[in-house]
Amino acid sequence: MALVAPQMNSVNAVILDRMQSQIPLIPTLAGHLISGGGKRMRPMLTLASAALLDYAGTRHHKLAAAVEFIHTATLLHDDVVDGSGLRRGKQAANIVFGNAATVLVGDFLFSRSFELMVEDGSLKVLKILSGASAVIAEGEVDQLTAQRQIETSEERYLDIINAKTAALFAAACRISAVVAESGEAHERALDDYGRNLGIAFQLVDDAIDYDSDEGTMGKGRGDDFREGKMTLPVILAYARGNDEERAFWRDAIAGHRVSDSDLSHATDLIRRHQALDTTRERARHFAARAIDAVAGFPASQARAAMIEAAEFAVARTY
Amino acid sequence: MALVAPQMNSVNAVILDRMQSQIPLIPTLAGHLISGGGKRMRPMLTLASAALLDYAGTRHHKLAAAVEFIHTATLLHDDVVDGSGLRRGKQAANIVFGNAATVLVGDFLFSRSFELMVEDGSLKVLKILSGASAVIAEGEVDQLTAQRQIETSEERYLDIINAKTAALFAAACRISAVVAESGEAHERALDDYGRNLGIAFQLVDDAIDYDSDEGTMGKGRGDDFREGKMTLPVILAYARGNDEERAFWRDAIAGHRVSDSDLSHATDLIRRHQALDTTRERARHFAARAIDAVAGFPASQARAAMIEAAEFAVARTY
Repeated sequence: MALVAPQMNSVNAVILDRMQSQIPLIPTLAGHLISGGGKRMRPMLTLASAALLDYAGTRHHKLAAAVEFIHTATLLHDDVVDGSGLRRGKQAANIVFGNAATVLVGDFLFSRSFELMVEDGSLKVLKILSGASAVIAEGEVDQLTAQRQIETSEERYLDIINAKTAALFAAACRISAVVAESGEAHERALDDYGRNLGIAFQLVDDAIDYDSDEGTMGKGRGDDFREGKMTLPVILAYARGNDEERAFWRDAIAGHRVSDSDLSHATDLIRRHQALDTTRERARHFAARAIDAVAGFPASQARAAMIEAAEFAVARTY
Repeated sequence: MALVAPQMNSVNAVILDRMQSQIPLIPTLAGHLISGGGKRMRPMLTLASAALLDYAGTRHHKLAAAVEFIHTATLLHDDVVDGSGLRRGKQAANIVFGNAATVLVGDFLFSRSFELMVEDGSLKVLKILSGASAVIAEGEVDQLTAQRQIETSEERYLDIINAKTAALFAAACRISAVVAESGEAHERALDDYGRNLGIAFQLVDDAIDYDSDEGTMGKGRGDDFREGKMTLPVILAYARGNDEERAFWRDAIAGHRVSDSDLSHATDLIRRHQALDTTRERARHFAARAIDAVAGFPASQARAAMIEAAEFAVARTY
């Protein structure tokens, strides 16, 4: 964060400027989420990647804002899709403004994101980000299809988080190599860094949903459990469970056991089988790959910060 | 339709090919709407505009598919926003597949639309269509804000339909002038044609909602009334009504009078004040402007077809 703080001010200025509209509900609703304490992780990756490549221009500020708009649109639509009550520690947009407005403002931000890319004018960046957007949507639909399906495998789960989360992390990093005209090898290295970091990040997020309390996390603890989402902690606990435990998981994921005491029992089973430890172990594997992806770059403050970010992503507990 | 039938086969091939995905629910859900008897009006406008300019290439096939994907994404999101039960005479996607999948497949088609534009490679086309997409979303949010607001004016209504409907008609026509490299004057003329046609088309659509029966229309008759949408027939009947009638409209648009007999009474009031005749009269005004926008082009089969399309748009009764 310290590395990119000055440029992040420029990105935030673009974000605030370009979420405006003559239709007052649009900035009100968008601002509810955008000003609501988001971490700006994806634009931060764009900025850090540009710093790694010693890029001296400012084109990436607009593109970092475009990436954040894609992410914000996805969150707004997720709020509707999940019917989630909390987001970043406050009421989700769909609760405050209704599903209809939340869907439509998501569409607006998505369109605005493409307008920003078009203003930049790089067809290569447009290709990367429109491709990532399609992959994100595919990942979200795939996740929906896997919901309440107890037989979902770890491989399928990894495919889903690769698409719904890691694709945008990868694109956020890669576009800086395009803007810096740094060549295909650097594009690939930064894509690898972002992708592995994204997978690690989502794995830890999914562990935290069974390992934190609501106050520290910003979204409702146990949401994944109640929604019947097949995340790795559940996949592992189910695979390692005895017949009785498996029967519990089948019922729970099907939506027949969603009380607080059921959640407590689920958390106990997950702990008993070290499923959170394994999930975090898997996350460390991907974080290590992210770190190795930038190992080939000369030592710099930017490289150190990107390594630290990967270490932090897997160490965090909320 | 006859004019562009051979090229429409190419466009349909692109549409069917590019709505595919490894996630089976995506083509299933998209196909429910896309194969469900849509009129392909917007891609038809792209093709007709290209014919008007004697464009001999095929770039516009992919772009016409992109336009149709934007439209399809909008319809899917509309189904969720309106909670509509019927679309094109069959169950709406949200009823069959649920809100979540419907939102996400809309997002997929929207992303895919930008991928198609990027493949074509014209930044000018990308600018036109990303701009139109943002305007559509603004129009949809504006319409939502005006919903159940009895004091909505005809001017505000025209702003809304200009954004939510006419902007994409205009863009669908304009991009053919870009592809044909036909110059700014032709771009503007085709934009004018599409925009006025789009306004006329929406006016007639809004008249039909109070003037048809469900069997011939494809969406549920009286949906606008029950949803408290402020369309021109209601705006005029309210403006022309006496105190008692206005009290009825206030209650009805607020959602307190939505029975079948309330709808009958509303239809009676609309008829008594010639509000449908006036709405169609307004539509003829915009259709005439559309026709005049192409008057400057040399006489051709394409021009005749575009004039006929504008005449048909306002003459149709379902």
